[in-house]
Amino acid sequence: MTPTPSPPTDESTTNSQPPTDDETSDETDSEARTDGTLVTPYAVRGDIDYDRLLEQFGADRLTDTQRERFPDHPTVRRGTFYAGRDVDAFLEAAEAGNPHAIVTGRGPSGPMHLGHVLPFYLARTIQRETGATVYLPVSDDEKFLAKDQSFASIGEATRENLRDLLAVGFDPERTRIVIDTADADVIYPVAVRLSKHLTPATVEAVYGEQDTVGLQFYPAVQATHLLLPQLVSGRQPTLVPIAVDQDPHVRVCRDVAAREALPVEKPGALLGRFLPGLEGPRKMSSSGAAPSIELTDGPEAVADTIREHAYSGGRSSLAAHREHGGDPTVDVAFQYLRYGFEPDDDRLADVAADYRDGHLLSGELKELAAERISEFLTDHQRRRAALGDLEDELEPYRLTEAERRAALEAAGVPRLD
Amino acid sequence: MTPTPSPPTDESTTNSQPPTDDETSDETDSEARTDGTLVTPYAVRGDIDYDRLLEQFGADRLTDTQRERFPDHPTVRRGTFYAGRDVDAFLEAAEAGNPHAIVTGRGPSGPMHLGHVLPFYLARTIQRETGATVYLPVSDDEKFLAKDQSFASIGEATRENLRDLLAVGFDPERTRIVIDTADADVIYPVAVRLSKHLTPATVEAVYGEQDTVGLQFYPAVQATHLLLPQLVSGRQPTLVPIAVDQDPHVRVCRDVAAREALPVEKPGALLGRFLPGLEGPRKMSSSGAAPSIELTDGPEAVADTIREHAYSGGRSSLAAHREHGGDPTVDVAFQYLRYGFEPDDDRLADVAADYRDGHLLSGELKELAAERISEFLTDHQRRRAALGDLEDELEPYRLTEAERRAALEAAGVPRLD
Repeated sequence: MTPTPSPPTDESTTNSQPPTDDETSDETDSEARTDGTLVTPYAVRGDIDYDRLLEQFGADRLTDTQRERFPDHPTVRRGTFYAGRDVDAFLEAAEAGNPHAIVTGRGPSGPMHLGHVLPFYLARTIQRETGATVYLPVSDDEKFLAKDQSFASIGEATRENLRDLLAVGFDPERTRIVIDTADADVIYPVAVRLSKHLTPATVEAVYGEQDTVGLQFYPAVQATHLLLPQLVSGRQPTLVPIAVDQDPHVRVCRDVAAREALPVEKPGALLGRFLPGLEGPRKMSSSGAAPSIELTDGPEAVADTIREHAYSGGRSSLAAHREHGGDPTVDVAFQYLRYGFEPDDDRLADVAADYRDGHLLSGELKELAAERISEFLTDHQRRRAALGDLEDELEPYRLTEAERRAALEAAGVPRLD
Repeated sequence: MTPTPSPPTDESTTNSQPPTDDETSDETDSEARTDGTLVTPYAVRGDIDYDRLLEQFGADRLTDTQRERFPDHPTVRRGTFYAGRDVDAFLEAAEAGNPHAIVTGRGPSGPMHLGHVLPFYLARTIQRETGATVYLPVSDDEKFLAKDQSFASIGEATRENLRDLLAVGFDPERTRIVIDTADADVIYPVAVRLSKHLTPATVEAVYGEQDTVGLQFYPAVQATHLLLPQLVSGRQPTLVPIAVDQDPHVRVCRDVAAREALPVEKPGALLGRFLPGLEGPRKMSSSGAAPSIELTDGPEAVADTIREHAYSGGRSSLAAHREHGGDPTVDVAFQYLRYGFEPDDDRLADVAADYRDGHLLSGELKELAAERISEFLTDHQRRRAALGDLEDELEPYRLTEAERRAALEAAGVPRLD
């Protein structure tokens, strides 16, 4: 007998959600291997949807070989990222020491939460192992248009988010942070170039109907983000780590890249599962109202938030839990550990086993998760606090004049001089 | 008895057409005064449409007083510009020596024709007399999107057009030339700001259905053009000389300005009549295929083009012309003189009288027009030839760093620093 969680809300947003793993049927999953017959409604639903989405989108499930070729990271190793497009081309370039790039962005409408930052750490891991170029587009234009916030408010969020991106610890030689308004000299002309054949019908099919002409245009800006590494530095495999429901955005860019005869390869995708909200599969973490762990939270706040809000896979009484055990597959504290805050697979398997057989209580599991998360955040916050003036810190990550010129030239946009 | 010209094609385009005067019923018109009963189908049509357009748009016909208060220019004196919005506010600022601005742009899809350049000369006249600030937006983005041309081709046209704008002889201290792609660092963020409440429905109602999301967004860019002088230098009456059918574009900007609570006045408009094409009222001058006089044409080419293509108001035989006289109101050569190439009202009246009574033949009228136009072009070409390197010449007309900063600040778009 298992708890009966509701299926996760499958709401699409135009915003990239950090992916996570909310099911356990994957072959490489430590729990699935210890209990091959476990099929919760949640996991079943995961199976059906995630496979169906791939079929619908025409993307490919990652093979074991591909997973092993990736730089080691829990989100890949444990199948949170489970599918992709043109992944082999990226891996081949990485292995051969040829140019290859990752694009992963941020929509700055508020403070960054725990889930938001993990794709950046994945990118950092890959960069450190393979020398990947990393582009981090910050879509303050889109957030201004999509949210009921002033540009001043979006600007404040942008500055705070930039500090978090800088705290991740990318190599400035190989990393570019691009802010749509601040880098509009490059972004807008290239987006105009890409929008020449981007029809309202295509945009509406993928992004939904939009209330403003600004948002109607934004997909051309997003396509610009994904092609920018190649426009700046030449053709190279580009990987976009993204939640699977965002794959259509990548496909729009791939179609544009092919149709416009630009000197680029179609960008590839690394597709991931959704991140469950703290309150469990019933809620997605996209809503601002949902409780969440912010990157600035101290250990007390983290522990309080998890204690109070994290959806538990435990039993309703201590006695029942001791007797029947808990269900780690729906326990959000466990899922956070699995997502990467417990990087050691053996220890994670031990935690799952202890929880399942009732030795580990829900409260204890929550304390463990809070501890691991706080360790991660303490490191992040230490690097963040060590940053100086934002403009100075950002400078080495900004596009150089030569790079701006190169991108415009590659996009066929003339300069006056 | 009069010739029977067809009414002019009344096709709207999203591009500002240089206006001209294609009817003669206006009270200030010299011919109308000498022959008050003359009502050609052409003039009647003009009356009906131009008045109906004003009523439909809610704009006001210029009063005699307003016309007299304007710096003297044939296009205003002779009623080519015949209506407007918020014209008094502009005139008051001009008379009081307070800041006031004119915005008149260019869509660079090819060489500039004779008709295109005259609104710029009107702006120069006003600038010289009142010290008006003049902004000249160049919409290479829109032309790239709207035409079947590459950005390289649009860029070439842009460079050539810029030389013509520079040749007009604006005061660089009071004039800014803004190129959408080259000045995207300001244009795009402000356009995003203005697009926040600009709905697809509004844009479609005014600009028509668009094929690409780039063109859907462009009205926000155009609104940016019209507000830019105020965003850079503070609230001031701004006048946009524009063909009357383009008035809805100004109204979109006025609505946006009011709704977004920006530190600006709604831009005013100076509304003009259409310029007839060389081949007469049957054709508009907007089509690239129609014969036209280019700004680079020498006297021979001008004369050849007018001889061959200019629609004549003369009779079918010399004898008939001597007996019945010609009709200057539909004669394109005469209309060009009236548009301003013959600046002297008395001489223009003499030409009309001589033509009407059969003393002046069509061929002679054409030679006269060719001569006057060539004089104008020779001066223009002399100044154009004296220009040096485009980038160097353009530099004093470009927005300064402080002006860019001021515009973004006024539009509420944050800078990182």
